[in-house]
Amino acid sequence: MLDRKAAETAGEAVKRPEKATGVWVPAATPFKADLSIDFDRYITHCKKLLEDGAHGLAVLGTTSEANSLDFVERENVLERLVKAGIPADRLLPGTGAPSIGDTVRLTRHAVSLGVRGVLLLPPYYYKNVSDEGLYAFVAEVIKRVNDRRLALYLYNFPQMTTITWSPVLVGLLIQDFPDTVVGLKDSSGQVHYMETLLEQFPGFAVFPSSESMLLRALRKGAAGCISATANTHVTGIRWLYDGWEGPDAQDLQDMAARVREAVQPFGWIPGVKTILAAREGTPDWARVRPPLDALNEEQTKELLAAVAEAGG
Amino acid sequence: MLDRKAAETAGEAVKRPEKATGVWVPAATPFKADLSIDFDRYITHCKKLLEDGAHGLAVLGTTSEANSLDFVERENVLERLVKAGIPADRLLPGTGAPSIGDTVRLTRHAVSLGVRGVLLLPPYYYKNVSDEGLYAFVAEVIKRVNDRRLALYLYNFPQMTTITWSPVLVGLLIQDFPDTVVGLKDSSGQVHYMETLLEQFPGFAVFPSSESMLLRALRKGAAGCISATANTHVTGIRWLYDGWEGPDAQDLQDMAARVREAVQPFGWIPGVKTILAAREGTPDWARVRPPLDALNEEQTKELLAAVAEAGG
Repeated sequence: MLDRKAAETAGEAVKRPEKATGVWVPAATPFKADLSIDFDRYITHCKKLLEDGAHGLAVLGTTSEANSLDFVERENVLERLVKAGIPADRLLPGTGAPSIGDTVRLTRHAVSLGVRGVLLLPPYYYKNVSDEGLYAFVAEVIKRVNDRRLALYLYNFPQMTTITWSPVLVGLLIQDFPDTVVGLKDSSGQVHYMETLLEQFPGFAVFPSSESMLLRALRKGAAGCISATANTHVTGIRWLYDGWEGPDAQDLQDMAARVREAVQPFGWIPGVKTILAAREGTPDWARVRPPLDALNEEQTKELLAAVAEAGG
Repeated sequence: MLDRKAAETAGEAVKRPEKATGVWVPAATPFKADLSIDFDRYITHCKKLLEDGAHGLAVLGTTSEANSLDFVERENVLERLVKAGIPADRLLPGTGAPSIGDTVRLTRHAVSLGVRGVLLLPPYYYKNVSDEGLYAFVAEVIKRVNDRRLALYLYNFPQMTTITWSPVLVGLLIQDFPDTVVGLKDSSGQVHYMETLLEQFPGFAVFPSSESMLLRALRKGAAGCISATANTHVTGIRWLYDGWEGPDAQDLQDMAARVREAVQPFGWIPGVKTILAAREGTPDWARVRPPLDALNEEQTKELLAAVAEAGG
């Protein structure tokens, strides 16, 4: 356990974290045969992603199977990464949970370690919740965390949560918590939604989850992207991020999109894990936690052939 | 904290709990102004439900806003009820969580207290999960809890989870864990689904969530029901349960169904809490936790008028 005393400091003197930009990777979480986290492999993977061009790591997201980790494991992951020498300000962990209390627990812990910010899922158990209810949830979390270092990035993933952070609600949250609600990761794949946010809220850090729309997003003012396939192809995505105003931008975009399209039919989580297993010659990497399924042998062959053909 | 040492005993000599039958109430959870649990009011409510005819309490279910309670609170609720003198074998708490680890934690804790069984939600974050993945999840939970006293009641609520415990999967679980997977609460409202389970698995304890189909369900062999509106109308449901083979069965069924239909449009959770608030003259009862919304004044009037008109 690291010292959490600093978490209690909420004074004016405390520096707020800088807004995140660039290519952030929702690092996949490798498991041993007994389904426990393989921390050695995990830390090696995370360090390599940073060496290969990632600006940071959006750990404990959907691709990380964070919702299949228990809360003790989720705290442990962050502590291990920091202890292994990864700067906390290059971490943007997911800390969402269905209840206010558990979300506050995970968020305070992350903030106490000095992370750049946290990705906040909406409370995803109940369905058809109102904007008012979601606002009250976020406001209560911010109030209870009570730490100037808290930077919230809303996590929009209606395919998993059935909830969309509506532009009206996002606007209200920015208005009432301008120094805390600073960005949004959009995994909806809805270009119109993303562009609405970019147009209405200049300076708000919007990250599409797909590098396939990164060029278009950057031209409209996006902050970067947080993409599952950055686990396996971070360098190409970084080239695109760095070169989006240069002469090769469209070529870089096309190449990144081809690789992503090759992985998509196999599911992001088993997909990227299977590629990592093949690349590192360690079948263990392909393991997922229930209720997810790993790819079978035939799917594995098809995926690897498709990625190779896409030039990945 | 109660003594959990007994949880470690998994020997042959340990007695398995008797199968639950009858009217079990998913007791609503009252909150104070600071949103903390009002334990005094809660314990009074739970005791009154048992006095008024409930066979037991399916606490920490959806109507209880269990998914808006953090895990420490969920454990605390059970300990407080037992300490207040409610027999643990009249408790059937929800212990589902998205991860195996957290589900095991909550389940072991409940089993260690001597509960009659636990209601298990499927891991509800990921969507489109396979039967194989769900089977692996349940099998891993059973293996890790490792306690002969564990009685699992699957909790089927696709409107919230998007996941259905398919009859094929239910059959496999009964086949492989006949002494542990002993029942299912069905909140789907799909009569055909419920009747399929009753026909295919005689002796499996199926509880519809709606007393409106209780007579039909009992005639097909259902074990009872676990209904939100039992929070406010348990006596009438108990009459129906006791009298389903008698001459007044259809009248009792019709009256129960009328009350339920009056509440439904307002949402079960704010609905039953608002009725309790009015009945006990304590507006505090109507409070819900974000992301849910309480009823406004007009909705409250409409609800109470509708329930009165239904004879409730």
